[in-house]
Amino acid sequence: MRMRAMQPLSKPSQRVWWLTLLLILPLALQAAEPLPSWKDGPSRQAIVGFVTSVIQQGGKDFIAPAERIAVFDNDGTLWSEQPLYFEVLFALDEVRRMAPQHPEWQEKQPFKAVLENDRKALAAAGEKGLMQIVGATHTGLTTEQFHANAQRWLAKSVHPRSHKPYTEMVFQPMLELLGYLRDNGFKTYIVSGGEVAFMRAFAEEVYGIPPEQVIGTTFASQFQNKDGTFSILRQARLAHNDDGPGKPESIESIIGRRPVFAFGNSDGDLQMLQWTMAGKGLRLAGLVHHTDGQREWAYDRKSNIGRLDKALDQATSNKWVVVDMAEEWTRVYPGDPDPSHP
Amino acid sequence: MRMRAMQPLSKPSQRVWWLTLLLILPLALQAAEPLPSWKDGPSRQAIVGFVTSVIQQGGKDFIAPAERIAVFDNDGTLWSEQPLYFEVLFALDEVRRMAPQHPEWQEKQPFKAVLENDRKALAAAGEKGLMQIVGATHTGLTTEQFHANAQRWLAKSVHPRSHKPYTEMVFQPMLELLGYLRDNGFKTYIVSGGEVAFMRAFAEEVYGIPPEQVIGTTFASQFQNKDGTFSILRQARLAHNDDGPGKPESIESIIGRRPVFAFGNSDGDLQMLQWTMAGKGLRLAGLVHHTDGQREWAYDRKSNIGRLDKALDQATSNKWVVVDMAEEWTRVYPGDPDPSHP
Repeated sequence: MRMRAMQPLSKPSQRVWWLTLLLILPLALQAAEPLPSWKDGPSRQAIVGFVTSVIQQGGKDFIAPAERIAVFDNDGTLWSEQPLYFEVLFALDEVRRMAPQHPEWQEKQPFKAVLENDRKALAAAGEKGLMQIVGATHTGLTTEQFHANAQRWLAKSVHPRSHKPYTEMVFQPMLELLGYLRDNGFKTYIVSGGEVAFMRAFAEEVYGIPPEQVIGTTFASQFQNKDGTFSILRQARLAHNDDGPGKPESIESIIGRRPVFAFGNSDGDLQMLQWTMAGKGLRLAGLVHHTDGQREWAYDRKSNIGRLDKALDQATSNKWVVVDMAEEWTRVYPGDPDPSHP
Repeated sequence: MRMRAMQPLSKPSQRVWWLTLLLILPLALQAAEPLPSWKDGPSRQAIVGFVTSVIQQGGKDFIAPAERIAVFDNDGTLWSEQPLYFEVLFALDEVRRMAPQHPEWQEKQPFKAVLENDRKALAAAGEKGLMQIVGATHTGLTTEQFHANAQRWLAKSVHPRSHKPYTEMVFQPMLELLGYLRDNGFKTYIVSGGEVAFMRAFAEEVYGIPPEQVIGTTFASQFQNKDGTFSILRQARLAHNDDGPGKPESIESIIGRRPVFAFGNSDGDLQMLQWTMAGKGLRLAGLVHHTDGQREWAYDRKSNIGRLDKALDQATSNKWVVVDMAEEWTRVYPGDPDPSHP
């Protein structure tokens, strides 16, 4: 099959068409620029420089597509995590929802504190109390029941300060980063301290990350056969705590490859970043630094949630990417006004 | 752009070209037939019928590509498993290789039995002895060291009866099945009682299954930082036993989707097949039935390795696919003569 030979440009109308194209072209190229919500600062330059280098076939930093594994923490890295991890807010709401079926909770801590909104008693219950609340709301039910509970809560709940649905408190610049990496042949994974099934309830729709690329904390589970009806019961025993050293451990056990790109925001991500950077060849480690008390929250070394202290020192001395959220992001959330289209 | 209109067939040379094409076409189609080492029997018909139905866009049995998850047991399903699981043969060889560094093994069971090739003492050591041998050869070393050990053994060892490398004792018809499914948009996974890192040492090269799609039994591991040198140490504690009910449990925890296609060969695969078939819509469960004492091994209900008893009853009553290896496969191993090209 041969194409008809192109006619020479002759008619005036065609000349106008070409002129228009020449005028539009720079605008079209601008629109296709990656990471539009990132200012042209050091973080954006490092990310684009890294990706440009590793996809260049025959270049000294080329990484084969199969090895382009990118891992992201979730809480504080892909969405906000204040005033408490959103999954904890889910667990507290679930205690309230489930209370009618648990009359004993009216007199039993830490559930009593949740139902009476008694912050002092809740704080006194500490981490042990929190684990009881997570256990009561996350285990003792089938995987399908839990998935439905998480999706119902995500669909109808709003954040106490912003009044936005939680799934709209994801970071627009990070959504763009996930897409940019995937457009360049990277496989994007979540590797998070959050519980894996809770994250799967929204990760595909919100981040474009399918369930099999979500890694997190897991409870033990038990396959059940009740007269030919099969289910998987979530048990009140941690199988894996996907925080700190647990992150490189789960990456090795589940992915079986060392990532070449890793992003986190707290000391719980340090080992994942170290493991990523200790491999051979060009790699990138980054931290989201929460510097934006206006549009989000400002916290680092002294925060109880998402403490960033040792990892910030490591990032500084190793020249990892540290994203200054206030300085480098033109938008934080997808619903924020887009300054490039005022 | 428009294509030049096709010229009417007029010259004699063109007529001959068309005639040749018409003659060649059936041969070309035949060459492209899937599963060439499968006879046109009930198993092949069921597999091709299933795939044809679920990929038909708009058809009542259509399955979206993202949900086309296919899971395969490894030992006895993708490669042979007699006279012992090949990974056990690896562990025994590793004891022999490591013996000079362990003089105490000369007098210590079950290692003494391995070094003296004392089958009676080895049998007496039982499952506990076997776990000691697996522990001594699979743990207490880094993930990178273990990977190197497994690859070295696979590269230089041969099977005691066939004298073939183990990686040539994979089933040619199953290699074709894996490829056929992938060609039709399925994601192929191994879900096996074998240890995950051992299988990853050959799964990508031999089966085309990348490390992140290999699920298996796992040992606990520990991230280590020795003065800035990072490693992951394999520990002598089982984290997950990927057999029986452990298979649907790991599928749920790692893949997070229910498979639509599952293949096994023993009672250890029963729960994986049940979990697969209990989902909604069209699904396929299959068993490799080792009926071929000539080309492979013949065993089922009374075998210590790969016992197929309850799962065979379930397959029969539920009309799952049961592959009669002797009857339905024209070749067993890739090195076998190809009867379609005598």
